[in-house]
Amino acid sequence: MTVPGDAKALERVMAGLGQAAREASQRMALAPATAKDAALRAAAHQIEAQAAAILDANAKDVAAALDAGASATFLDRLRLNEGRLAAIASGLACIAARPDPVGRILEEWQRPDGLRFQKVATALGVIGLIFESRPNVAVDAGAMCIKSGNAVILRGGSESVHSVAALIEAMRQGLRAAGLPCDAVQAVPVADRAAVGMMLNMQGTIDVLIPRGGKSLTARVATESRIPVLYHLDGICHLYLDARADLDKARAVILNAKMRRTGICGAMETLLVHEAVAVTHLPAILDDLLMAGCVLRGDAGVCALNPAVTPAIPDDWDTEYLDAILSIRLVRDLDEAMAHIATHGSHHTDGIITEDQQAAARFVARVDSAIVLHNASTQFADGGEFGFGGEIGIATGKLHARGPVGAEHLTSYKYIVRGDGHVRTP
Amino acid sequence: MTVPGDAKALERVMAGLGQAAREASQRMALAPATAKDAALRAAAHQIEAQAAAILDANAKDVAAALDAGASATFLDRLRLNEGRLAAIASGLACIAARPDPVGRILEEWQRPDGLRFQKVATALGVIGLIFESRPNVAVDAGAMCIKSGNAVILRGGSESVHSVAALIEAMRQGLRAAGLPCDAVQAVPVADRAAVGMMLNMQGTIDVLIPRGGKSLTARVATESRIPVLYHLDGICHLYLDARADLDKARAVILNAKMRRTGICGAMETLLVHEAVAVTHLPAILDDLLMAGCVLRGDAGVCALNPAVTPAIPDDWDTEYLDAILSIRLVRDLDEAMAHIATHGSHHTDGIITEDQQAAARFVARVDSAIVLHNASTQFADGGEFGFGGEIGIATGKLHARGPVGAEHLTSYKYIVRGDGHVRTP
Repeated sequence: MTVPGDAKALERVMAGLGQAAREASQRMALAPATAKDAALRAAAHQIEAQAAAILDANAKDVAAALDAGASATFLDRLRLNEGRLAAIASGLACIAARPDPVGRILEEWQRPDGLRFQKVATALGVIGLIFESRPNVAVDAGAMCIKSGNAVILRGGSESVHSVAALIEAMRQGLRAAGLPCDAVQAVPVADRAAVGMMLNMQGTIDVLIPRGGKSLTARVATESRIPVLYHLDGICHLYLDARADLDKARAVILNAKMRRTGICGAMETLLVHEAVAVTHLPAILDDLLMAGCVLRGDAGVCALNPAVTPAIPDDWDTEYLDAILSIRLVRDLDEAMAHIATHGSHHTDGIITEDQQAAARFVARVDSAIVLHNASTQFADGGEFGFGGEIGIATGKLHARGPVGAEHLTSYKYIVRGDGHVRTP
Repeated sequence: MTVPGDAKALERVMAGLGQAAREASQRMALAPATAKDAALRAAAHQIEAQAAAILDANAKDVAAALDAGASATFLDRLRLNEGRLAAIASGLACIAARPDPVGRILEEWQRPDGLRFQKVATALGVIGLIFESRPNVAVDAGAMCIKSGNAVILRGGSESVHSVAALIEAMRQGLRAAGLPCDAVQAVPVADRAAVGMMLNMQGTIDVLIPRGGKSLTARVATESRIPVLYHLDGICHLYLDARADLDKARAVILNAKMRRTGICGAMETLLVHEAVAVTHLPAILDDLLMAGCVLRGDAGVCALNPAVTPAIPDDWDTEYLDAILSIRLVRDLDEAMAHIATHGSHHTDGIITEDQQAAARFVARVDSAIVLHNASTQFADGGEFGFGGEIGIATGKLHARGPVGAEHLTSYKYIVRGDGHVRTP
């Protein structure tokens, strides 16, 4: 490990990582599915076999976080245990069992003159992931990149540096066991924050950056980097309770969307309620949420229904609480609900609860979000729930990938054109 | 038109274009296929009906270019005539006849618990195209954007400003006739070069930039813009003549790849020849090329075959001539050919000529180019030839779109998730 502040040494370390990643990516791009899947299974085995060492490393990170006065939520995200390691290992096995995203024939066609075209999925190259706190993100990301024939350079927060190093070492052993280049998965071995700045300037080496962190990280990437980025931004997720909603479904979905886990980007932050069901449906829903410990902030109409609801201020409609807090607003109709989502939403995940199929069709067609839901919880916004075997992030932009990003979204494509001496005329 | 140099006025013009484009893009995203196709057909009709006015406008541009001492090649690219207008109009009709790229169900699946997923193609938003000299690019780009439910802001070179304005006016009339917002297609109405700089800073308004121009434009976009870019870079295209190539096919394909049109990005710039066929195949090929007026630069082995071949210097292997010049090198085998392409190519379009199916399979799998060809001319690198009805450019990067970019590549997607009160557990 280099001494923080030794910029020249850090530059050499980063250049070495970059060079190794590019070379590994070229081999990974051509690796057969059997080898990639063997590497994932071997990595799962190594994580279980090395559980004691990984938990020791994690204990160092947890001790440092405790010393630094970290919150209980933060510690919970950071902490590993036998159960979490088993879940990580079974996630790897699950990804290994999925079809190879590379080499898929995405389209094929033939011209009348016999020239044949195939559009075939290929690996992307080198992914750079910058993430915070949860060490398992490193494994998910590494697994997605192995599966998709890419190389990845991971940069976790300083708070998880020992845990990530131990987990990544197990993955690298898995790659080696399968005869693949272990440098397909590398972690920046330095806690120095300057490493992030260097990663942001590795254009030509890193093909796409995925920042998974707070607004300051995102802003820094947007300002400093010339590398294409898959942003993982806010999830200001809405549910709209329509005039023709079924009350039982509504209660279940709303409670789950808000309270299952409040700290994830797919948690509902604002509930929009058609005024026609404010009196029939909303009181029971407010009771459910209050019983579960949720703080409620509403407009005047909502406040009038329950004294525990405090008045919302304008900022509430634009806030991703990531906490047991919900803003609630009455709307005149579907169009007003969609206008609210267009103005205040973050194009991440938004849903409608209704038995009116026409209203549902209109909502899912018109709401411009990565995920639009009908009668389902916003907490399904997750690559694992989508069946991708995990995710490297949830893309909130529209270019290249949108929504949960799994291995198949970490691919590009090429056209293969086959002729028999075909020339272009005129 | 504003006075060049009046920065405030120009800023207002650009902000107005941006605002109008965003509003138009929202309507276009939801426009039915019938309306979009009607707009394309009406635009085709308008271009034919207004041919005289368009040719008058073009004549102004041509006169100005003549005054400025433009080359014959430049004038040829700039000049319109009845035949070219008819081709432009028929291109529009061709795009109208293609299926709607928006709303396509790209994937769908269902979980055992009944939760149903659809991945559906959506429009992207606002495209910014910066291009040079050929006025028909404006129509191709406008048509691709109409078809894909996007809005486009076009910035042609000052040399084509009158031609582009006249063509775009016809397209806007087509949109109006179909009841769609004419601001889905707008051209920057100012020749002021500062307009380009402003476009590069319209993040949040322009969703993706497509620069189609020389290296200075590309470098400027890379340095100045924070907007995602689909680059249209060099085409240093190769053909590799394998040991088991059929001579007749090879002669036809090589001559076409180099000489059909030398100024397009899909023109072959370097020919790699397996040394085993240097004596059997290459002399006839050199004669073909020399007869067609091609200048030949070769390594020592090639120079020895024909006194008209002059020695290549190292720069030749990295040069996109866009002219009747070809560099030729002998290689020991397929691997050396692929190594040359990896080192000197631009990942655009590269091909192999061989009857050896194994060699062909190895080449198309391993060469990392947007288009890889077997026994076909590199000049097929074109969205029209691919059946896309045209192209807005040829993407040389790997993110989002690669190779010829047609309407279907100017889309994003969303996930529609349909449940019946589904909640996420645990």
